[in-house]
Amino acid sequence: MKQIVNTCAAIQPVNAELLPAIQRRLDVLTKPPGSLGRLEEIAIRLGLIQNTTAPHAVRKQVVIMAGDHGVTEEGVSAYPAAVTPQMVANFCAGGAAINVLARHAGAEVLVVDMGVAVPITSPGVLMRKVAPGARNFCRGEAMSAEQAEQAVQHGLQLAHELAANGVDLLAGGEMGIGNTTSAAALTALALNMDADKLDILVGRGTGVDDAALRNKCRVVRTAVQRHSGASSAEPRGVARGLAWLRAVGGFEIAGLTGLILGAAEKRIPFVLDGYIVTAAALVAAEMAPSIREYLLAAHCSAEPGHKLALRQLELKPLLDWDLRLGEGSGAALVLPLVEAATRILAEMATFESAGVSGKI
Amino acid sequence: MKQIVNTCAAIQPVNAELLPAIQRRLDVLTKPPGSLGRLEEIAIRLGLIQNTTAPHAVRKQVVIMAGDHGVTEEGVSAYPAAVTPQMVANFCAGGAAINVLARHAGAEVLVVDMGVAVPITSPGVLMRKVAPGARNFCRGEAMSAEQAEQAVQHGLQLAHELAANGVDLLAGGEMGIGNTTSAAALTALALNMDADKLDILVGRGTGVDDAALRNKCRVVRTAVQRHSGASSAEPRGVARGLAWLRAVGGFEIAGLTGLILGAAEKRIPFVLDGYIVTAAALVAAEMAPSIREYLLAAHCSAEPGHKLALRQLELKPLLDWDLRLGEGSGAALVLPLVEAATRILAEMATFESAGVSGKI
Repeated sequence: MKQIVNTCAAIQPVNAELLPAIQRRLDVLTKPPGSLGRLEEIAIRLGLIQNTTAPHAVRKQVVIMAGDHGVTEEGVSAYPAAVTPQMVANFCAGGAAINVLARHAGAEVLVVDMGVAVPITSPGVLMRKVAPGARNFCRGEAMSAEQAEQAVQHGLQLAHELAANGVDLLAGGEMGIGNTTSAAALTALALNMDADKLDILVGRGTGVDDAALRNKCRVVRTAVQRHSGASSAEPRGVARGLAWLRAVGGFEIAGLTGLILGAAEKRIPFVLDGYIVTAAALVAAEMAPSIREYLLAAHCSAEPGHKLALRQLELKPLLDWDLRLGEGSGAALVLPLVEAATRILAEMATFESAGVSGKI
Repeated sequence: MKQIVNTCAAIQPVNAELLPAIQRRLDVLTKPPGSLGRLEEIAIRLGLIQNTTAPHAVRKQVVIMAGDHGVTEEGVSAYPAAVTPQMVANFCAGGAAINVLARHAGAEVLVVDMGVAVPITSPGVLMRKVAPGARNFCRGEAMSAEQAEQAVQHGLQLAHELAANGVDLLAGGEMGIGNTTSAAALTALALNMDADKLDILVGRGTGVDDAALRNKCRVVRTAVQRHSGASSAEPRGVARGLAWLRAVGGFEIAGLTGLILGAAEKRIPFVLDGYIVTAAALVAAEMAPSIREYLLAAHCSAEPGHKLALRQLELKPLLDWDLRLGEGSGAALVLPLVEAATRILAEMATFESAGVSGKI
């Protein structure tokens, strides 16, 4: 746990002292001040994170973490758990949506087996399997305390390695049949919501019908009732975040929590994808409250709980496109927009250099 | 006028018969049906417009039309009219936001002088100058009937030339100090709004202060009161659209109206930028009611009237980023997202080809 605590202690607020310098640069470019709206906001955010007036987003990395969920035995997903390893193979073959979108954005894709239930044989997968699937958290804890720590540490370590390789921008994605159920339960714990109000956190995931949705609500309520007492008994911070993961998390979610923390420690902006990655960020925010300053929310998904999770993190999504695929697809989709913000700052002419008149 | 009437008559609803085939293709790809939300919507829209189940967005063209506005003598802009030709020079030198964003999207930029007040000497500008600036429409008509027709025809003709050159996707942009005032007046006429309710159509443009905003509202009200009777006396359709342009338009706006119509005639999807380009689309919709099916709205700008104009066209913007620069910057920004939709359709594996299980 010491490594996690040290990382969290190292995550300080971004360097707000740079704000006036970046703002000055934006305001001499040939456009009315502020007229590029959120594009300027992104440029500023990246500069403050990367601690430079010239932020860059050339080396873009998507990390997809995969893991299985014992809670699928409660009938919470429209797809069989076998899809998790099948989709990992699809990622490796380059045929999934995330591959297409990452190629289009000029981003690399790395697939990590954090806890798929079956042995993964696809070439190119980074093996960080903590265990073959999380346990059914309706009946007990999803994982042990040691496993939760180990999964977070794998994520931290990977972020450090990617930072050493010169990655400018990280995007998180996930694959795990059943993981919107885990995300809903984690969000309920993080938002400290009453069990009888949880239904608004539960959506159709990959597309369950009405009866399965009611069952999924029941499963999340059961899990939260079972686990909220123990986790809220833990002291706030790293211990409580780990307790949430232990209770109702998944290995891919715990790995993403570590990845998000490690990225912030190395001042790499992290682009959140959908509900599951955002749940990992809620855990990271419990561990390191400044984490939200290092995050960009790619989109608000069709999962109803996602909006509440983003609100908790005070993040305004870049897109509202009813995406609900996961894999990091929404995050990859916005990478060209994020990169565009850096190019505006780097490549636009100034009023002076272009000989354009200022305001009357 | 005959050419314009013929083009408008040639613009039919998009080929909805292709919808089931495109939908089938989307639904065999390795993702839950519909899970890519608006990305799937865009793929379908492009397919229906291009009349193919394999739409493409490889050759992307941004057309920036420039023109000046006599109404600037009423003090409606925060910047002097001299900025119009200065920004044209900046576009030609590659230093404006639109250049950066188009380069980033892999799009070509073409700058057209539709009616800049001074001679344009920048290399590479397509010269289609109808007159050196529209007249002050507070005191009379912005242009003659012949000039309005000529400007629209230039736009039509250019769309036909770009279609012949194999352009897949068109994005419209504009430059013209004073043209948010013209856009507000056009929107008022197109929405048939009472003069005393017009203020919600008037925004700060490049950034006028409160006093100038009040003055801008007065200018738009005066113009609409002066011209609404005559234009609503024209029969609906092409004649009325031309009457609006004649009354309160600008040469760049009229050219964009023609460009939008010509693109639809050639089944080229057209990406709208902000308030001004959308005002041109409102005129096009008066001339050819099916036009909206050929349009994508890039964003909802910070100009308050833009939202109402988009609602009138029944278009849902892709971004809501408080952009208010114009030039086509918002349209260029979303081109990578639009292209991504085509790549999803073309490049993703199917459940069968990837060996992924379907729903339980």
